[in-house]
Amino acid sequence: MSRSAAAAAGLGKDLVGIEHLGARRITSILDTAEPFKEISERRIKKVPTLRGLTIVNLFFEASTRTRISFEFAEKRLAADTVNIGASRSSVAKGETLVDTARNLEAMKIDMVVMRHWASGAARFLAERIPSNVINAGDGAHEHPTQALLDMLTLRDHLGAIAGRRVCIVGDVRHSRVARSNIFGLLTLGAEVGVCGPPTLIPPHMRELGVRIFHRIEEAIEWAHALNVLRLQLERMEAGFVPSLREYNRIWGVSRARLAVAPEPLLILHPGPMNRGVEIDSDVADGPHSVILEQVTNGVAVRMAVLYLLAGGRPEKAEAAKAEEVA
Amino acid sequence: MSRSAAAAAGLGKDLVGIEHLGARRITSILDTAEPFKEISERRIKKVPTLRGLTIVNLFFEASTRTRISFEFAEKRLAADTVNIGASRSSVAKGETLVDTARNLEAMKIDMVVMRHWASGAARFLAERIPSNVINAGDGAHEHPTQALLDMLTLRDHLGAIAGRRVCIVGDVRHSRVARSNIFGLLTLGAEVGVCGPPTLIPPHMRELGVRIFHRIEEAIEWAHALNVLRLQLERMEAGFVPSLREYNRIWGVSRARLAVAPEPLLILHPGPMNRGVEIDSDVADGPHSVILEQVTNGVAVRMAVLYLLAGGRPEKAEAAKAEEVA
Amino acid sequence: MSRSAAAAAGLGKDLVGIEHLGARRITSILDTAEPFKEISERRIKKVPTLRGLTIVNLFFEASTRTRISFEFAEKRLAADTVNIGASRSSVAKGETLVDTARNLEAMKIDMVVMRHWASGAARFLAERIPSNVINAGDGAHEHPTQALLDMLTLRDHLGAIAGRRVCIVGDVRHSRVARSNIFGLLTLGAEVGVCGPPTLIPPHMRELGVRIFHRIEEAIEWAHALNVLRLQLERMEAGFVPSLREYNRIWGVSRARLAVAPEPLLILHPGPMNRGVEIDSDVADGPHSVILEQVTNGVAVRMAVLYLLAGGRPEKAEAAKAEEVA
Repeated sequence: MSRSAAAAAGLGKDLVGIEHLGARRITSILDTAEPFKEISERRIKKVPTLRGLTIVNLFFEASTRTRISFEFAEKRLAADTVNIGASRSSVAKGETLVDTARNLEAMKIDMVVMRHWASGAARFLAERIPSNVINAGDGAHEHPTQALLDMLTLRDHLGAIAGRRVCIVGDVRHSRVARSNIFGLLTLGAEVGVCGPPTLIPPHMRELGVRIFHRIEEAIEWAHALNVLRLQLERMEAGFVPSLREYNRIWGVSRARLAVAPEPLLILHPGPMNRGVEIDSDVADGPHSVILEQVTNGVAVRMAVLYLLAGGRPEKAEAAKAEEVA
Repeated sequence: MSRSAAAAAGLGKDLVGIEHLGARRITSILDTAEPFKEISERRIKKVPTLRGLTIVNLFFEASTRTRISFEFAEKRLAADTVNIGASRSSVAKGETLVDTARNLEAMKIDMVVMRHWASGAARFLAERIPSNVINAGDGAHEHPTQALLDMLTLRDHLGAIAGRRVCIVGDVRHSRVARSNIFGLLTLGAEVGVCGPPTLIPPHMRELGVRIFHRIEEAIEWAHALNVLRLQLERMEAGFVPSLREYNRIWGVSRARLAVAPEPLLILHPGPMNRGVEIDSDVADGPHSVILEQVTNGVAVRMAVLYLLAGGRPEKAEAAKAEEVA
Repeated sequence: MSRSAAAAAGLGKDLVGIEHLGARRITSILDTAEPFKEISERRIKKVPTLRGLTIVNLFFEASTRTRISFEFAEKRLAADTVNIGASRSSVAKGETLVDTARNLEAMKIDMVVMRHWASGAARFLAERIPSNVINAGDGAHEHPTQALLDMLTLRDHLGAIAGRRVCIVGDVRHSRVARSNIFGLLTLGAEVGVCGPPTLIPPHMRELGVRIFHRIEEAIEWAHALNVLRLQLERMEAGFVPSLREYNRIWGVSRARLAVAPEPLLILHPGPMNRGVEIDSDVADGPHSVILEQVTNGVAVRMAVLYLLAGGRPEKAEAAKAEEVA
């Protein structure tokens, strides 16, 4: 029943990535997130929508931010949640991902939210178990809910995605956030640019229809919004970047640099930020930063995804939010 | 009140082991588990049976599988649960188990589910605090809920335990799972065998009335069901087993080896499996494997134990499962 | 709304420390804790007071005892709780405390319970986010709920705080528990003494109006109650204390030593205890020890603080406890 309802709503069993989602489904998720925003503004932040459902947060990589955003979303929909961290999981005992999944399945769970270090792990899991699988980030592949919350934030501020120009700045090569955003933004009709050190920009970007900027000044002149990626400090050790100071000097998003823009750019960052490296504090905390709104929208987008995969229908979301938890 | 009701149902304050439980009580738990199975099959997997009770999962050894099985059981009965892992507990500060327990008790908890590395830790605790104590595995002593779920699975498939022949294969010497199973199966009238390298079979098995098989082929010809134990990889380092390859060649349960059985054997494994060591994948995933049913039954058996210790009565379990959570 | 109600009840937005709280507010918290004690004595230990509120337990230092006491308090008031441990938090990725806090805030949380290794961290946070902040211990600064539960326990047994003589024994120098107790006890009109090795007693104690005892025998003759601090074993390594044995011989609270008191002293300890170091087992478990009552009162005091900060009023606490959770 929940499966067919989800199919009717246009969303499949799982949310593995943005790449093959299509504009109608992306828009459907963003639209469904709108009414859910309001639930988190109430004193009693809880509706009974997923009452009695069991959701497992299975994190093979540590990520407090994403894990608690999902945990808040699940609890505000009244689901029962269980957290499994990699270090404490049977994985330590050499069990395969399939066996872990089948065991969870046998305990009659409804959904798995999984973060994994291997690209493709979410699809692998989704194909092997009947529970809904939500990809909370898999290797350098996709991080679909991050891209959805970024798009919801862009839409809130730019009025639409279609026709807007968004530039992703930084380590595009290793970033699942960049990949998911590029797929989503292109699907919804945005113009997408990327900008960063040549070592961190994969050359196939052009084939996707993405514009490559070699200087951040050019990107700033062109874009309506910048999505500034975190520079993983490991990149420096691996030789992709000479030094943090050097990176900040050439690619850091600073107020001075933004001043060349014809009109103020919207500033996004998926967090956690390295202040003074990829972004300066006066930009991160400045009037055009929507970084904290992204975090707020993250909970609403995740509630929407959980709701839709559990069989909810976009047109019923308004009604769902009006339900009272006992 | 809850205590006397539990006594009336034949279960004491605690579930420390199977050894002294007796056939009537074991059967009572298995019978009570039956109606609870269905709760996990529903969309709303929750009944209000233990609403407002506080249960602490106190794990001095990591065990994702057992911990989350208990956590699901507790949450589906609407209890409030708190997890304490050894690395994060006061134990790190040198507090004794008694002090940890008394402190929990002083916070007015109702039950403790404890996994501990020391044999006897569960009884030690049970004798010192008035809360219900459930042994989730103590050293090489007992793991009663594992044996109960194994017996429930055997009964489901063999129709009964009495008169059936069950062989436990592998590292019987260090296994609390083996011990609990042997006690339970003998109590219910099964014939029990053990089979494994002589270094891993304690000689006193015969005195318990357990048959020792020196070759796995003989065990397979004799048994209706095999319960294949995980080979802890530490055993090899400690010199009990020459190599994993050697172990698999002589003791591994493979399809070829099972072909000599007069009729198909039921295959159980407490997990997590070392595929290709103690069990081959075509057996683990084969038509006579009930390994995932064991996991499913684990939640139901744990719900039954929680329900009975909290004062529930076996004959009321049908009614309890029909209650609706608000 | 919740903010103004809390203000009306005399408690501000946060509970950062006892130092500036004043007698009226301290007494108000203790009085509010009284009716909450009874909730933990029930079978159904749950009232709907904080239903749908989101509380984050943000622990930058491990502390099972304090964390689960808060977790029980939160769950018994029906709040939704999320635990964040330092090792698993974004802190590992070099995020600042402010960014962590703003992110939590953006997820629309209601309260943060924070344990931090840095003195002043709780105030720093409280000034930067609109959520209620409860200090669960910050460096060597304050641990207000510990002092409140100590005072509640003293009041229960001594009838009042004013005019009673309480001596804190041990490592006063590094102890936030000692500081919070000294502020609270002096505010409520108690006479306060401290006693311990000169290396562990800060000389400015006298300026606070605290009496310094150089021999434990003198303290015992003078006091109505001893609050015995845990000796952190690191102190020995750092050279503050020659050896544990030596410490016990000179400063340990033993039955023989207590015999010199004109009448029996009440014995408190914030836990976890080093039995045989700062306190002997026959004292810890003796007839005048109220150590486990402290633990019980800890849950009630924390419920009271959560209730008041969420806008509850002391005079309504009786009514709140009578509500039934659905």
